[in-house]
Amino acid sequence: MLQAAMELISERGYRRTSLAAVAERAGLTQQGLLHHFPTKEQLLVGVLEERDRWDFASAAASSGAWRTETLAQLVDYNATRPGIVQTYTVLSADSVTEDHPARDFFESRFRAVREGLAVLLRTEFGDSLPGGLTPEQAAPLMVAVMDGLQLQWLLDPENVDMPASFRDFLALLGRGGGEGVKG
Amino acid sequence: MLQAAMELISERGYRRTSLAAVAERAGLTQQGLLHHFPTKEQLLVGVLEERDRWDFASAAASSGAWRTETLAQLVDYNATRPGIVQTYTVLSADSVTEDHPARDFFESRFRAVREGLAVLLRTEFGDSLPGGLTPEQAAPLMVAVMDGLQLQWLLDPENVDMPASFRDFLALLGRGGGEGVKG
Repeated sequence: MLQAAMELISERGYRRTSLAAVAERAGLTQQGLLHHFPTKEQLLVGVLEERDRWDFASAAASSGAWRTETLAQLVDYNATRPGIVQTYTVLSADSVTEDHPARDFFESRFRAVREGLAVLLRTEFGDSLPGGLTPEQAAPLMVAVMDGLQLQWLLDPENVDMPASFRDFLALLGRGGGEGVKG
Repeated sequence: MLQAAMELISERGYRRTSLAAVAERAGLTQQGLLHHFPTKEQLLVGVLEERDRWDFASAAASSGAWRTETLAQLVDYNATRPGIVQTYTVLSADSVTEDHPARDFFESRFRAVREGLAVLLRTEFGDSLPGGLTPEQAAPLMVAVMDGLQLQWLLDPENVDMPASFRDFLALLGRGGGEGVKG
């Protein structure tokens, strides 16, 4: 089901992916799909959780541990999958509205991601980054840069080079994956 | 009409502000409101344009020109108006979906904001910021930080200090309004 949803999102985008289409692609009745995911929001949260699991497993397989360079590679990879990035951008923003079904998921996820990034930054740089911030100060900025660049890139991919901008931010924090700042 | 919409958004949030309620608050028939703003999205774009005009006029009145310190004050101010920030966050993200009525508005706005910030940064710092980036490299990161912090703050205002984090970013770029990095 999640695989079918991810395929459809890649092909058609967030708005045009219906529960009916996902059920059909997965070879289920709509009733069968609704049994697992009663709303489109719940299905899409499932898709984003699956993406997180996949990204973590890939990073573990490729480098054994997350480093800032792993994050830069994740941003490179995101630039190849606009459908899922679009889903994340729309659903995370929508979750800030009153009583949204995905609010708890995103609130917890952001907290976990900030904490995880602070650990990663402390492992890589110690208690103070070369740019002068503590890991706890840099972590929410790093999450913000990733999310904010995704929004600008989705709207204007020809003028926003998301991977290059993210590496500019890493350079600002203290080092740019060994490459420094590119012009 | 825009004033009525802004009041209702402040009181009730984005999701619970209906065209009918805005018409009632503004003392119009719903037909009269629909004549000016045929959809909720168009009304909300009007609200965001009005906010931009107001913010620009306020900055011009207080300091004569935008500087990074003006931006920090704008972030301080945004932390007092979650309703309008919520509207901006939800609508800007939603605009990345296929054929969204607000897509052109946000695409143009982001382009103009990036260009405006690059000019501001060049005036303040010259062709290279103390942190090492060019104004054109720093501008999309600055927009991303503002947008991304708003999302984290709307979800978790107790754990995300949006104004302090934005000043951390300014410190990273080259100076923190004369205060340096606060721990």
